[in-house]
Amino acid sequence: MPIVPSAQYSLTIRVEIDDRPGMLGKVASAIGAAAATIGAVDLIAAANAHTVRDITVATGGPDHGNDVVAGIEAVEGVKVIDTIDRTFRMHVGGKIEQRNKHPLITRDDLSMAYTPGVARVCEAIAEDRDRAFQYTIKRNTVAVVSDGSAVLGLGDIGPQAAMPVMEGKAMLFKEFAGVDAFPICLASKDSDQIVAAVTLLAPTFGGINLEDISAPRCFEIEDRLKEALDIPVFHDDQHGTAVVVLAALINAAKLTGRRVADVSALIVGLGAAGVAVTRMLLAAGVSEIVCCDSRGAVHTDREDYLSGAMGPVKRWCAENTNPGQRAGDPNEVIDGVDLLVGLSGAGVVRAESLERLAPDAMVFAMANPTPEIMPEEAIRRCRIVATGRSDYPNQINNVLCFPGVFRGALDVRAPQITEEMKVAAARAIARIVDDDELREDYIVPSVFNREVAPAVAGAVADEARASGAAMTGHEHGFAATDNAARLHGSAP
Amino acid sequence: MPIVPSAQYSLTIRVEIDDRPGMLGKVASAIGAAAATIGAVDLIAAANAHTVRDITVATGGPDHGNDVVAGIEAVEGVKVIDTIDRTFRMHVGGKIEQRNKHPLITRDDLSMAYTPGVARVCEAIAEDRDRAFQYTIKRNTVAVVSDGSAVLGLGDIGPQAAMPVMEGKAMLFKEFAGVDAFPICLASKDSDQIVAAVTLLAPTFGGINLEDISAPRCFEIEDRLKEALDIPVFHDDQHGTAVVVLAALINAAKLTGRRVADVSALIVGLGAAGVAVTRMLLAAGVSEIVCCDSRGAVHTDREDYLSGAMGPVKRWCAENTNPGQRAGDPNEVIDGVDLLVGLSGAGVVRAESLERLAPDAMVFAMANPTPEIMPEEAIRRCRIVATGRSDYPNQINNVLCFPGVFRGALDVRAPQITEEMKVAAARAIARIVDDDELREDYIVPSVFNREVAPAVAGAVADEARASGAAMTGHEHGFAATDNAARLHGSAP
Repeated sequence: MPIVPSAQYSLTIRVEIDDRPGMLGKVASAIGAAAATIGAVDLIAAANAHTVRDITVATGGPDHGNDVVAGIEAVEGVKVIDTIDRTFRMHVGGKIEQRNKHPLITRDDLSMAYTPGVARVCEAIAEDRDRAFQYTIKRNTVAVVSDGSAVLGLGDIGPQAAMPVMEGKAMLFKEFAGVDAFPICLASKDSDQIVAAVTLLAPTFGGINLEDISAPRCFEIEDRLKEALDIPVFHDDQHGTAVVVLAALINAAKLTGRRVADVSALIVGLGAAGVAVTRMLLAAGVSEIVCCDSRGAVHTDREDYLSGAMGPVKRWCAENTNPGQRAGDPNEVIDGVDLLVGLSGAGVVRAESLERLAPDAMVFAMANPTPEIMPEEAIRRCRIVATGRSDYPNQINNVLCFPGVFRGALDVRAPQITEEMKVAAARAIARIVDDDELREDYIVPSVFNREVAPAVAGAVADEARASGAAMTGHEHGFAATDNAARLHGSAP
Repeated sequence: MPIVPSAQYSLTIRVEIDDRPGMLGKVASAIGAAAATIGAVDLIAAANAHTVRDITVATGGPDHGNDVVAGIEAVEGVKVIDTIDRTFRMHVGGKIEQRNKHPLITRDDLSMAYTPGVARVCEAIAEDRDRAFQYTIKRNTVAVVSDGSAVLGLGDIGPQAAMPVMEGKAMLFKEFAGVDAFPICLASKDSDQIVAAVTLLAPTFGGINLEDISAPRCFEIEDRLKEALDIPVFHDDQHGTAVVVLAALINAAKLTGRRVADVSALIVGLGAAGVAVTRMLLAAGVSEIVCCDSRGAVHTDREDYLSGAMGPVKRWCAENTNPGQRAGDPNEVIDGVDLLVGLSGAGVVRAESLERLAPDAMVFAMANPTPEIMPEEAIRRCRIVATGRSDYPNQINNVLCFPGVFRGALDVRAPQITEEMKVAAARAIARIVDDDELREDYIVPSVFNREVAPAVAGAVADEARASGAAMTGHEHGFAATDNAARLHGSAP
């Protein structure tokens, strides 16, 4: 396999180099010869006989990193003093921090932000709890809650090990939508305990983003929390994925001259995301859907359905999809399908099976890190390919969805994220790609497109207002601030 | 009662003033005539015929604020456009926010802070959970947990209304000790539920600061959490107060020529703080202590002790204090007492009772906002007076304790705050006041003294290391950062 140097495996290598002409060139050449790429080169010290430099190098992985360091050390007159893994370095002490919005320098500051002045604010909220949305962080703060049971492709690694992902999620919330998010990793995989803990926590937060909780517990936990709480509860692995899949489908259908409702779809994988995509496609009017789990297509004649061994969520899938009762593994039920959505594992779909898709077919192969079918193979047999990966075109990434969805919901204080709000979000994401930009390899915007989150937020807020789901239209900016202060102010 | 203008009741009043010489002087005079004080005067707009200004005015309270506005409006040629309560304004949207420590601008940033690079960090923690202290916010983050049942002097106002206090606490943690603190207000007053929720939350945090939970539940909740968790659990209302009382006592004893262990003490009030002060004084060697609750001095001949009606914490007090079995209300058991510590309510101690204290007595009257005895009355009958208030000398304020205590505990990863660490904190606070500075009205440092938190942190960390309570001596700064990155780095 060729070495692909990447920032995720980048090192900062501190080297002491003899102070002779051409020496830095030799070091750079050694790095090049080891097939790594050089980033920053910083001068740390220049002593009599040698210079000390920090050289940042992207490598293809830990072993390759060792090779690169060995290559540098082999250069005569060069000594490697130290090597730092930049990804680990970025994580030391965590990636987010709490900041005060106001200074606490004087007694006056303290008397307003804390005692005794804070008491009047507390009393105002005690009088009307709704005011927590005005005078506390509830207004703009989302809990990113996980039990660490289904983290990335790593599986059940526990709450401590899940924290770096949840902190990363919190960073994305802030960076793309200005939402303050706080990671909460829970030391239990018991649904009752998780529901109880999150219900107790809720007064602090304006929304709950569930993350990386394994199926089928994630369905029950989300449903029960939605029932218990008056703030939005959103399981991102389900709905974030489903929203972006629908966005991609909207544009892919447009490009291939289809109506979304007419598309026939095959969903491979019935974990959290697969089920949510199925529901979202049904909500979008798609009627011809076949869902496969590890035992093949789900239908009401399947043995585990008849015996009652099938869980409630899959039963629901069996009853609401696959009207033709197709049976068999994904490669067996693929004939004539317009859209294949893979949310399962590496290589589950065979390349030759794709030959039996409908003409101009669409394949969204989203298993991570290795898709159900590699894009290079898929694209020869269908018209549009999308994956979950950043190194191929058409990355279906939840980041396009969740920051904007919560921004919109918080802005209008929506008590929940409805199906209609999700569809509105999908449409808003799709619209970011203009008709004249739309191409087979550009059906969803880049995750770094800064227009996406505001567009999603606006669409979600509009939909909430239109359907009466919005509790209040509190705006941001100074007018709103002053109104809030005026409301309970001491002067008329 | 005279009007005392204060920042906590300050207003920003927007006025439109006719553009004639002397007009601003008239407005300022009207404010002065209404007995308010003027802060900033900002020019907002200057149109043809008039200017618009924002005048910040400290008032004595809401009614007085109305009077001031009316006074301004009565000036001919002046119109009040708007009035904003500055304390409420400071609270709009909450007082803290989450910030990212690293930018997320490029795909490389994302590949290190989030997927795919984050997976290696997750795996390193999954291998050894202890690494959460290196690579997640656990290293520097404390939960400020309350159920809103005993907030300030306001009582049981509920979790939503408690948030502004907990946010304020989080601000103090950050401002004075660089600790990231996050407020968690729980929607339950059931001890079992609170213990369960906090236990589940713990993986995210490096410490738990319990706050404003009513007695006697606070004792049980703290004890059970200490038992369940391997991170420090500290009920600030108890131990923060006790530490600062001991600090004040150390200096007051020095000033009055006593040994701390020889002091005879009367504790009035057996809520969370009263019990903790009793324990701390016993730990400091004080043997002559009488504790009073609302029924008077606690002892083992008291009817509720004998009948078994007395709760376990007060039983413990009865068994471990008051060896002379003194009986009666505080005014009856005050004879010959060196130190009176009030943690009860306004006016509980009569001025004339103080005449019966020992010579050179010390009175710490900490009921808030109105002390057990007003300092003006107390000081005529004893040598040293302290209160909980910022407008009298010797303010006994927990802010002197908790930021430094958690800073020190986090720095050395102490799994708990021991009695010895609390005593070390008290000594460190006392030492901030040099011997040549020590006076009757200066026995504790100011809450704004920036030397306090680092001194407390250092003393707490030293004590933890000396007693073997420290888990690791992870330092801060770049050396530590690099070591952590090196540990799991890809290069040797």
